[in-house]
Amino acid sequence: MNTKLQIFDSTLRDGAQSANISFSVEDKLKVIETLDELGVDFIEAGNPYSNPAEMQFFQRVQALKLKRSKLVAFGSTRRKNISCEEDSNLKSLLAANTEYVAIFGKSHILHVTEVIKATPDENLCMIEESVRFLTEHGKKVIFDAEHFFDGYKADPAYALSALESAAAGGACILSLCDTNGGLFPDEAETIVRVVAEKFPSLVVGIHCHNDGGLAVADSVAAVCAGARHIQGTFLGFGERCGNANLSTIICNLQLKCGYLCLPAENMQKIYECAMTIAETANIAVPQNEPYIGMNAFAHKAGMHADGVLKCANSFEHVDPAVIGNKRRFLLSEISGKSAIYDKIKNYFPKVDKNGREMAIIAEELKNLAVQGYQFEAAEASFILRVSRILGHYTPSFELINYKIINEQPAIEGKVATAVVKIRVNGVTRIAASDGEGPVHAMDLALRSALTEFYPEIAGTALVDYKVRVLNSDKATAAKVRVLITTVNSTDSWTTVGVSEDIIEASWIALTDSIDYALMKRM
Amino acid sequence: MNTKLQIFDSTLRDGAQSANISFSVEDKLKVIETLDELGVDFIEAGNPYSNPAEMQFFQRVQALKLKRSKLVAFGSTRRKNISCEEDSNLKSLLAANTEYVAIFGKSHILHVTEVIKATPDENLCMIEESVRFLTEHGKKVIFDAEHFFDGYKADPAYALSALESAAAGGACILSLCDTNGGLFPDEAETIVRVVAEKFPSLVVGIHCHNDGGLAVADSVAAVCAGARHIQGTFLGFGERCGNANLSTIICNLQLKCGYLCLPAENMQKIYECAMTIAETANIAVPQNEPYIGMNAFAHKAGMHADGVLKCANSFEHVDPAVIGNKRRFLLSEISGKSAIYDKIKNYFPKVDKNGREMAIIAEELKNLAVQGYQFEAAEASFILRVSRILGHYTPSFELINYKIINEQPAIEGKVATAVVKIRVNGVTRIAASDGEGPVHAMDLALRSALTEFYPEIAGTALVDYKVRVLNSDKATAAKVRVLITTVNSTDSWTTVGVSEDIIEASWIALTDSIDYALMKRM
Repeated sequence: MNTKLQIFDSTLRDGAQSANISFSVEDKLKVIETLDELGVDFIEAGNPYSNPAEMQFFQRVQALKLKRSKLVAFGSTRRKNISCEEDSNLKSLLAANTEYVAIFGKSHILHVTEVIKATPDENLCMIEESVRFLTEHGKKVIFDAEHFFDGYKADPAYALSALESAAAGGACILSLCDTNGGLFPDEAETIVRVVAEKFPSLVVGIHCHNDGGLAVADSVAAVCAGARHIQGTFLGFGERCGNANLSTIICNLQLKCGYLCLPAENMQKIYECAMTIAETANIAVPQNEPYIGMNAFAHKAGMHADGVLKCANSFEHVDPAVIGNKRRFLLSEISGKSAIYDKIKNYFPKVDKNGREMAIIAEELKNLAVQGYQFEAAEASFILRVSRILGHYTPSFELINYKIINEQPAIEGKVATAVVKIRVNGVTRIAASDGEGPVHAMDLALRSALTEFYPEIAGTALVDYKVRVLNSDKATAAKVRVLITTVNSTDSWTTVGVSEDIIEASWIALTDSIDYALMKRM
Repeated sequence: MNTKLQIFDSTLRDGAQSANISFSVEDKLKVIETLDELGVDFIEAGNPYSNPAEMQFFQRVQALKLKRSKLVAFGSTRRKNISCEEDSNLKSLLAANTEYVAIFGKSHILHVTEVIKATPDENLCMIEESVRFLTEHGKKVIFDAEHFFDGYKADPAYALSALESAAAGGACILSLCDTNGGLFPDEAETIVRVVAEKFPSLVVGIHCHNDGGLAVADSVAAVCAGARHIQGTFLGFGERCGNANLSTIICNLQLKCGYLCLPAENMQKIYECAMTIAETANIAVPQNEPYIGMNAFAHKAGMHADGVLKCANSFEHVDPAVIGNKRRFLLSEISGKSAIYDKIKNYFPKVDKNGREMAIIAEELKNLAVQGYQFEAAEASFILRVSRILGHYTPSFELINYKIINEQPAIEGKVATAVVKIRVNGVTRIAASDGEGPVHAMDLALRSALTEFYPEIAGTALVDYKVRVLNSDKATAAKVRVLITTVNSTDSWTTVGVSEDIIEASWIALTDSIDYALMKRM
């Protein structure tokens, strides 16, 4: 029987401290629903005291019927010199109407005396009284001991006494925070062990930040030392360098260390859950993110690709399918023919490895490579190209012409205007748009011309646009490669275009992105 | 006396396996120069056997006079069933003409029997003979034991015998590779300790990948257990989830654990080095990257910012200035005036640090940074901006307007036409040009309009053009940063432009490049 760990996700609270994230109410509901579906134990949904919108959110969220997750409201211990009954923050925690609340309090002696300027005893009273106030009002209390590890290193007795005060007040979970994120795993292990031995009847939690690039390792070390509750954010969002990345921690602990973090049958939903949260936050998951990144199981070097084909675990630490991710072979000049075939057969199982079609495809890919195409990050364009060669696919529209004008001074603040004329099944349409730049204008004009024929493209959106200059010694006459990433509600795909003209390269990638969306639908 | 660790950077070899990275020869030279300036011990510059361009690169690189770093050529043990003298890979390692070479060999029994299909003894022979062949030809050999940790877990005796073979052949460094990236720090520590005790006269190295999000922690654990050579890539570039991130590891070990990785006086160059490598690779450093990220020391206004102002280390694990990064307050930016002054005084020694001019410059640079300007790789634009503020310089021309038209189908093969109207000393000129793309057409038209006034610009030529998409989640309406490098017969300079419109961003960088050429002449 594997030991169960509590997973506590703070994407909506600590994660929302990220410099570039702000969640709407709908976004938050979507994240809660997604995390509940995945089966995390706790979802910290916000700080009801921070502003009226947060409090309204807690009222609205009561209507959700969650399958498994408990919502948690976050706040702090009472202020000094007032009673708990007078403390608006504690009152708002009661009003948030969740079964669990998390409150942080000081456990580092220097922060007590220098930052909040309280006496050591005063701070211990604030902790104990605040926790007791909440438990007496029926709450289950998670105590977040802020700066616990730095505090323990400075004055272990005082840091432990903060925990004792929380325990005396009735806290059920003692969460040890590495607030500044500089903790090392060996320190985490030593200190958590002391705490776990001292509080055998309470659940000990760990809350790490990634300022030293060690938050995952620290969390794993804490679990080895007896922590049974892990706080973090699913994609590592958070202030500065982010919080501990729960997707990585869960995979490490459940797939490799014999702990139970999520219901076993939900492990395969991790990739999709990550994509949904990233889309909701409008943040792209880094392609090299452990386990869930687009490239986490991508193989480029000929030798590695060969090795994986011979023996799956030769260059993979886990099977990507276990978490819903996929193996990818990057099609660069160094991948061999077996990698190309392996990729093709996923989509076109009928192609014969030694047949004529395969020879034509290989030839075409070689020509495209000479032009500067690389499909390693643009699988959708790869599939389209092969589909065209195989005759599986007809383009969704025909371009008659486009004209894009950039000018300075700008007109009504818009620097670019695009006119696009296309034909679909013999019907011609022309549409125009202005935009922040030529590609923006072109994208809007093309979508406008096509919507009548393909209303579903309204549900797709460009989320990433990358430009790389090839053979750049030719400078402004050099070729450029444009990569465009598009999403709809369930999926994301990347397309590529190459040209000496950045507008044309963008056009190619853009039409591929639309063609791909329409082809998949069919 | 702090223990010295060897830092081995593989950005140009293992880092180039990243899905979206390809370095030109100029890029590689720039990376080498940057890493040498920083003071890393080894720079793995490529695999001379992989293709003729790589071998040419090693020939060209001989001309570099490096201050400190040793270049390393990478390859493998000989193939089975042939002699070392016949092995093209080993011969190319000799021809690469570096003092050090790194070769990888199998140390995991299953990879020997299943992937390369050799007998256990045959593989040991391949290792020993290959290392001996290289050492007898005067090379110092770093042996990369591929899959060492997984191999040790499967069959410790065989994994160790691979190291013994390398040692018998004369290897000076035994680098233990976690090729699949699934290693945990406690395993790293236990296994490295065994190896370090077994080979007390050799240097033990560690080479980690980040598939479990643990590469930094694994590397640190290995050092604690006796490793004295750390392989990684400066920004964590690499196949799948990347290699161990050296910038994080160096900071952790040198700032917090008492090891010496870089000359102490170079630690403050880490941030700038990271920016230069990132720009060269055309990859944005993630904003939340430990130590070097834009947000690594960013505090949202409120309690944390307040705490930091009361007591610097209350919410910072290290002082950002130590590595050349800065504290940022996200809502009320308080910028490091002395850092700006340090840069300005190199060019404009008369500017008073506490004077009014300095205040205006600092304000202007802060505004530009908010817009997305970065001057690390565009010093010419930086000098121009400051010169303008100081009144040292008048723009060489005034733009009246430009109009750039892109169209498909192309006319006589040209897709873009530019019309540029400018004024110089009250004289107006209009010129037009077509081109391979809009920036090309614009560049030609502008030069054509200006030549009459400034014949010397005929002697300048654009040699590099780079585009970076900022906040790319906004996709085609996102801002772009354009970098243009221009040369004349004696010099080269880089300029930068930022706009939501790629044409305007290019225009800004282009006019800066011409203005800078003309300012220098004066």
